[in-house]
Amino acid sequence: MLKVKVLTIGKCREAWLASALAEYEKRMQGHVRIEWAIAKNSDQLLEWAAQEPFLIPLDPKGELLDSETFSRKLLRLFEEKGSRLCFAIGGAEGLPKALLNRFAFHWSLSPLTFTHQMTRLILVEQIYRAFEIEKGSGYHK
Amino acid sequence: MLKVKVLTIGKCREAWLASALAEYEKRMQGHVRIEWAIAKNSDQLLEWAAQEPFLIPLDPKGELLDSETFSRKLLRLFEEKGSRLCFAIGGAEGLPKALLNRFAFHWSLSPLTFTHQMTRLILVEQIYRAFEIEKGSGYHK
Repeated sequence: MLKVKVLTIGKCREAWLASALAEYEKRMQGHVRIEWAIAKNSDQLLEWAAQEPFLIPLDPKGELLDSETFSRKLLRLFEEKGSRLCFAIGGAEGLPKALLNRFAFHWSLSPLTFTHQMTRLILVEQIYRAFEIEKGSGYHK
Repeated sequence: MLKVKVLTIGKCREAWLASALAEYEKRMQGHVRIEWAIAKNSDQLLEWAAQEPFLIPLDPKGELLDSETFSRKLLRLFEEKGSRLCFAIGGAEGLPKALLNRFAFHWSLSPLTFTHQMTRLILVEQIYRAFEIEKGSGYHK
C-alpha cells in the first residue's frame, strides 16, 4: 500500500468537494491511501512540515509538468522514499517561505490561482491519473 | 448582463460537479449568465463552433496565464465582443485542429491533463475569480 499525506489548511466545507474527493479515494482503495492533515493555521502547518524529511510543496511559482511527466516523477519518488510521500498545500497566502526554502522541487499545478479546496481535488485526481497512465488504461486519454 | 457560452462534449454525469457548477453560477447570478451547449460528438461541436465569429478554445498546448492576466483579458474581451463570449472545451482527443486553426488565441489552464468535467469547473471558477479580482474583493487572495 502506498501512502500520500497531504498537509493543508482549513476544513473542507463544500459538500461537493468531499464527495468528489471520496470518489477518487475510493477508486484508489487498496492501492493508495490519502491521509489529510488539516492544520488550523500556517504555524501549525509549518510545525507539522518540520517533521517531514521530504515533502513536495505546491506553489503557483513552482515547476509546471504535464501529466505524463508527473506520473513518472511520482512513481520514481514512491520508490526512492519508501512508498510514502507528503504534499503541502498553502492557505490564502501560499506556503511559508521557510517551508519552500527547505525543498528544491516546488510543483505548480498551473500559473492560475485556484481555491485551496480545488487544489486538493486537482492533486488527488492527478495522483489517480498518474497510476492510470502507468497502467496504460484508457482513463487518461 | 454578460453572457458566456461554453461549447463542450458529453453530459455532466457526476452529481458533485453539477453541484459545484451551480454554486458558482449562483454567485454570478444577475451579472454573468453561463450557457452550456453540450454536443454529442466532435462533429456537432465543430458545427456549432462554425456559427461563432469569435471563440476561445481551451487547449493544454495553448497560452498559460495567471489569474490576474486572465481577469484583464476577459474584461477587455467582453467590451470588444459586445458582452458575449464563447469558450470551447474538447473531449478526450482535445479540440479538432480545424477549430483551433480558426483562432489565434488558445488558452491553456495548465500543461496537466484534466477531465473535461474538471475543466468546466476550473473555467467557471476562473470567470468568477476574474470579476472578484476586478472588484478588488478578498475572494482571490
